[in-house]
Amino acid sequence: MKRLTLAQQGRLHYALSPLNEPKLIVKPGETVIVETEDAFSGQIKSEKDRRNMKAIPFSNPQTGPIRVEGAEKGDTLIVDIKDIRPLTGQGATRISSWWWYLGPDGSATLSQFLNLEIPHGTRICPIKDNKVYFDDGIVLPYEPMIGTIGTAPEIEAISSYLPGPHGGNMDLPDVCVGNKLYLPVHVTGALLYLGDVHATQGDGEVCGTAIEMPAETTLTVDLVKGKAINWPRIESPDYLMAVATSGSGRPLEEAVRIAFMKLILWLEKEYGFDRWDAYQLCTQVAKVRLGNLWTVAAKFPRKYL
Amino acid sequence: MKRLTLAQQGRLHYALSPLNEPKLIVKPGETVIVETEDAFSGQIKSEKDRRNMKAIPFSNPQTGPIRVEGAEKGDTLIVDIKDIRPLTGQGATRISSWWWYLGPDGSATLSQFLNLEIPHGTRICPIKDNKVYFDDGIVLPYEPMIGTIGTAPEIEAISSYLPGPHGGNMDLPDVCVGNKLYLPVHVTGALLYLGDVHATQGDGEVCGTAIEMPAETTLTVDLVKGKAINWPRIESPDYLMAVATSGSGRPLEEAVRIAFMKLILWLEKEYGFDRWDAYQLCTQVAKVRLGNLWTVAAKFPRKYL
Amino acid sequence: MKRLTLAQQGRLHYALSPLNEPKLIVKPGETVIVETEDAFSGQIKSEKDRRNMKAIPFSNPQTGPIRVEGAEKGDTLIVDIKDIRPLTGQGATRISSWWWYLGPDGSATLSQFLNLEIPHGTRICPIKDNKVYFDDGIVLPYEPMIGTIGTAPEIEAISSYLPGPHGGNMDLPDVCVGNKLYLPVHVTGALLYLGDVHATQGDGEVCGTAIEMPAETTLTVDLVKGKAINWPRIESPDYLMAVATSGSGRPLEEAVRIAFMKLILWLEKEYGFDRWDAYQLCTQVAKVRLGNLWTVAAKFPRKYL
Amino acid sequence: MKRLTLAQQGRLHYALSPLNEPKLIVKPGETVIVETEDAFSGQIKSEKDRRNMKAIPFSNPQTGPIRVEGAEKGDTLIVDIKDIRPLTGQGATRISSWWWYLGPDGSATLSQFLNLEIPHGTRICPIKDNKVYFDDGIVLPYEPMIGTIGTAPEIEAISSYLPGPHGGNMDLPDVCVGNKLYLPVHVTGALLYLGDVHATQGDGEVCGTAIEMPAETTLTVDLVKGKAINWPRIESPDYLMAVATSGSGRPLEEAVRIAFMKLILWLEKEYGFDRWDAYQLCTQVAKVRLGNLWTVAAKFPRKYL
Repeated sequence: MKRLTLAQQGRLHYALSPLNEPKLIVKPGETVIVETEDAFSGQIKSEKDRRNMKAIPFSNPQTGPIRVEGAEKGDTLIVDIKDIRPLTGQGATRISSWWWYLGPDGSATLSQFLNLEIPHGTRICPIKDNKVYFDDGIVLPYEPMIGTIGTAPEIEAISSYLPGPHGGNMDLPDVCVGNKLYLPVHVTGALLYLGDVHATQGDGEVCGTAIEMPAETTLTVDLVKGKAINWPRIESPDYLMAVATSGSGRPLEEAVRIAFMKLILWLEKEYGFDRWDAYQLCTQVAKVRLGNLWTVAAKFPRKYL
Repeated sequence: MKRLTLAQQGRLHYALSPLNEPKLIVKPGETVIVETEDAFSGQIKSEKDRRNMKAIPFSNPQTGPIRVEGAEKGDTLIVDIKDIRPLTGQGATRISSWWWYLGPDGSATLSQFLNLEIPHGTRICPIKDNKVYFDDGIVLPYEPMIGTIGTAPEIEAISSYLPGPHGGNMDLPDVCVGNKLYLPVHVTGALLYLGDVHATQGDGEVCGTAIEMPAETTLTVDLVKGKAINWPRIESPDYLMAVATSGSGRPLEEAVRIAFMKLILWLEKEYGFDRWDAYQLCTQVAKVRLGNLWTVAAKFPRKYL
Repeated sequence: MKRLTLAQQGRLHYALSPLNEPKLIVKPGETVIVETEDAFSGQIKSEKDRRNMKAIPFSNPQTGPIRVEGAEKGDTLIVDIKDIRPLTGQGATRISSWWWYLGPDGSATLSQFLNLEIPHGTRICPIKDNKVYFDDGIVLPYEPMIGTIGTAPEIEAISSYLPGPHGGNMDLPDVCVGNKLYLPVHVTGALLYLGDVHATQGDGEVCGTAIEMPAETTLTVDLVKGKAINWPRIESPDYLMAVATSGSGRPLEEAVRIAFMKLILWLEKEYGFDRWDAYQLCTQVAKVRLGNLWTVAAKFPRKYL
Repeated sequence: MKRLTLAQQGRLHYALSPLNEPKLIVKPGETVIVETEDAFSGQIKSEKDRRNMKAIPFSNPQTGPIRVEGAEKGDTLIVDIKDIRPLTGQGATRISSWWWYLGPDGSATLSQFLNLEIPHGTRICPIKDNKVYFDDGIVLPYEPMIGTIGTAPEIEAISSYLPGPHGGNMDLPDVCVGNKLYLPVHVTGALLYLGDVHATQGDGEVCGTAIEMPAETTLTVDLVKGKAINWPRIESPDYLMAVATSGSGRPLEEAVRIAFMKLILWLEKEYGFDRWDAYQLCTQVAKVRLGNLWTVAAKFPRKYL
């Protein structure tokens, strides 16, 4: 099985760009193992460590891009997540300014304006036997997920902090083992990036960091040729999910509406529902998942298909 | 057991006001059965029925208020939901303009501006044997919940369309049988209103109406004397939940933040957590529920208490 | 000329309700002088004064309601603002938690969560000769305006903190001398309330309080019979303005959109514009005013009528 | 005087990237003339023209980048706008889906979901003698401005549709002749891009396009060495302005707050104000400008400096 190690990767990426050289080339249907650094750029290994922003001024480093042979603009990339394992037997978490996530410089401005002093709360959490040791008393289930994963946009290079139609920093717990993620292909080869794996995460990722861990993820990559989607989808054994994100001119309320419109149009086009029936049925049976505070998934239970 | 029937109630209320006469007086600890009309003001009984806004210009009628003896401003009211049954063996749903819910007149303005013609989709759903018959092929579980329930504000009379610190139109599926709802007491007697019961509902209630039904709800009402909360809480066997709602100057993002701040301060005050530890733990284990598009609950799993 | 003094008024109101007794009855076309207390409920008269929330637990007291003879639901009330004068020769301002205005209890929760300590900045500003003395060096023009003014809703009693389709706490500098405010009439007699007069105010009223002053305001009240509006309008010598506010399910972006839709439909209906031409013309010539952080006016220059 | 013509430019850019080759190199203090294509990628020259998205799939083309000698990360770039002239004697406007601007694909989804049919309203507007001929009867003043202007981000390539800390698609009428725009420098040479010039524009640019024109703009470019700003500033003869934009996790309300925090911290740092005094003073005298629906400027009148 092909493997893209951190050593092979070398320099990690902090923006999902169409211009970076592929670090691995795979065929549709192929399964690969991809190593990723943690969201702290690998700088928090013990509780006394602090981020050194001079040495590495960015967080959320991405492995890749992985080039998928035969992928062309207008196709859809399938990422079937087979396995996620910690690389070092531990994860780390801390309170970032992201609770008040206001984008580049916004949170810093708020902290400066209000002279906020919030504890960083750096915490190392051992991971073993499918458990995450949050502290002496609290043990969490190991429910690993990929926080950031996406394809290269056509002409933009999007910061790995941000989510969007290309995927990116969605922090959705549903991007987990056993589920398939569908991403739009904007450029030849698709150019898949991933990183920011979490040992576990709650909805909203409200303090800004989950249990962040360097990880190895086993993925089977495949293509749907000639079928375009404009925003990510996820399929689990139980749900179809349409993802949308907030952004410029698109507050969280709009992200929820877009996710539902996407979901309903999907049910109409691929499952034969009448649009307005699907709308009414979603009203009764759909679930909503908040990833981070700016990503939502609208979820339709498969049992009603 | 005391019962407040629709016949005893007579005129229903469309605003939660401190000024309405109590229709029932109960003691703390007492269990009562309360009948409520459906959100369509009882006008949709068959698929050819339409709302007659001249006859009844409002929706979401409320039964009550129920006066709780001994309740004073600064107490907390507990509503323990024991049972919810349909009154007529059926529910109804339709597409309202609430998908684009923009508040009084906002949705109508949008429809007018864009010349929207959206099917109303009126649909009658028989309810029996713990099942809701959405259409010939699709059968939903009967998972009843109270869409609108709240206490009288101190000096306002709040439309039954709106949620807020007093509760109101939260449309949270967690306000269901087996759970306890905690509401702030702002006036002597608490003055509890409820209505808008749903046979089942998805997160977001996105077409604007769930399976709306006239219902009889069995509640045990109790008080926490001398302890004030400022926004509703819910306790289920598995979760502690803090509720917040969007409103003037408070978009959905802020409602999520407020719900989490409430949840964390609650964990700090009543369960001995350090605030910042609780913040970090919520980040890993909390769930978020979207009621309607303007109400959220931040949920903490009891197993970590 | 009729005058409604604070002495005649007696108890002030903190919610705009249809149920309060009129304190003054006027005929359409009549001019009256109305005295109002300041937004601090009259408790900040010197820089060492603090709000005593036990004595008066609310802010933004309202004078009224004023009953307008002949006003019926479906009419429009015209308030022509003739003059605004300070009652005491001074105004006051301070930093409230409203910068982060998150509605009832939201701001308090944020302050508690972050242990915020923000100076109150209580400041008394003498007013004379059409000037407001902010401090020793900074002198502001006296540009008085009414912060809160509205008609009674049909069945709600809306807190005087909140704006909405009924008007209320809009804090729009355009509600000033020389301009006409149009308000919907929801109940017989219209029931006009006003208060919260400002000696001057910037856009956004960002620290939460303008130069707040007790005032006497001269108004001519009139009616447009049989013509309903659903949200306030303002006419100045130079602009037509449509007002909208944020609220539940209606973030600020939506308030802006609603204000523009209202403005464009108004130009279509009353000035003979094609809707889409008006839309395009507004794009080129309209101005937007932010009142407080949750109220906007879309302004169309009369010179293009 | 140096001139960067469209012919010299050749291929235009649709993302502001640090990786594009400079098309012109200038020294600090130098004045240059820059030609820009219109936002329609030059495809709307008569009222029967339509955008050919196959030929040019993007809008808002940018001229540049212009490299400024000596500019380094951490400096601030000054763009002093001396003159803006139409290149072809006309501008064009039409209704884009941007009214409901919901970002990439969001608006299209809404249109699809609701089967919207909105007239495109393509309109050619002659420009002469400082006037813009909107139609036979309506003549607008020629008040030209630069819709999109920004520096290269450090590692991202940001779509020319989007605004952000780097500037970009702000659509602020204050970016006009006689004013100075300050932009952060993130990379060596600053790499300035501009395009999307408007003959005139209202606040909010609500139909999505102003009077779009190919233009030649005369700029004097200069540097503030060693002083970093994190978001654009504008200085006019009358105002200091701090700009902020909405984005992921940052609805419009937050953009307003960030703009004001930036403005106040600026007054504190460079003009000797106490922070809280400045906050209070802004509350009384500041203005707010909405550029497009996702960009705001908080404006402080210089006369109070």
